Amino acid sequence: MDLKEIIRAIPDFPEKGITFRDITTILQDGKYFKQSIEEMAEAAAEFDFNVIVGPESRGFIFGTPLAYKLEKGFVPVRKKGKLPFKTISKSYDLEYGSDIIEMHIDAIKKGDRILIADDLLATGGTARAIVDLIEEAGGVVAGVLCLIELVDLNGRKLFDGYEVRSLIKY
Amino acid sequence: MDLKEIIRAIPDFPEKGITFRDITTILQDGKYFKQSIEEMAEAAAEFDFNVIVGPESRGFIFGTPLAYKLEKGFVPVRKKGKLPFKTISKSYDLEYGSDIIEMHIDAIKKGDRILIADDLLATGGTARAIVDLIEEAGGVVAGVLCLIELVDLNGRKLFDGYEVRSLIKY
Repeated sequence: MDLKEIIRAIPDFPEKGITFRDITTILQDGKYFKQSIEEMAEAAAEFDFNVIVGPESRGFIFGTPLAYKLEKGFVPVRKKGKLPFKTISKSYDLEYGSDIIEMHIDAIKKGDRILIADDLLATGGTARAIVDLIEEAGGVVAGVLCLIELVDLNGRKLFDGYEVRSLIKY
Repeated sequence: MDLKEIIRAIPDFPEKGITFRDITTILQDGKYFKQSIEEMAEAAAEFDFNVIVGPESRGFIFGTPLAYKLEKGFVPVRKKGKLPFKTISKSYDLEYGSDIIEMHIDAIKKGDRILIADDLLATGGTARAIVDLIEEAGGVVAGVLCLIELVDLNGRKLFDGYEVRSLIKY
């Protein structure tokens, strides 16, 4: 099955004029969810990495099964104040205002090779902030892997010199 | 390896007097994370279910690899306003104030048998609200499975007549 046919389009979410790509319709069927992880694992095989980093919350949904399947470590990136230990943080711009993400200060060891995994590449702001966090921590960004890419938003322009892969394009 | 030895204790988080059990130290090592999912899968085998429901965000971290491994559907329960489609919701009390969780209205089919998966059973308020949501949606709660249980908080008292299992007890 082509997973693109399973993803549900939600008009005007989170705001008017935006069509949201709803991946919960993949998740709720065990065979489609399994297929999505298998396809991401196949794409991940082209990267040389030992740790997966994924952002809260949908990055956890695809990043942790991938880490489990490939027996890699998983490092969560979360919104400010959610992680319990000492963190490093990065502020990044949103369309209106800004946001802060954090990662545990000891989550990445110098020289770790990191695959960033998320459900969606849109404007790329979050993933770009994660790249900066990883490099600040001494890690090497092996690449970025997303299930879905909103091609018109051209998030790739923020990743010059990095490998970005996506499975489903809109 | 006993996973209890890998979990990090964080004093006074999220507030003074609370010792937070930090599972990121399991996640960041691929072999410990794999072990945690294998152990949860073994415990899950004692429940008869076809869908896993997990709450945002740490419920995603253990629930989705488990769903992937067992080829079950996964239904996310999220904080108010995060899910893009029509939802049913449930308010529940916290120590101070209250919170609202939501689930997509079509996520569960009548008669689906549900395993609720989370990292932690503490006071049990969130998991109990999920039980109510599932039953309102016409699902059958097969049981609750958590990696960690804070026994002193006696969250189990909210689950009379339901099967609750945990792997690591404090």
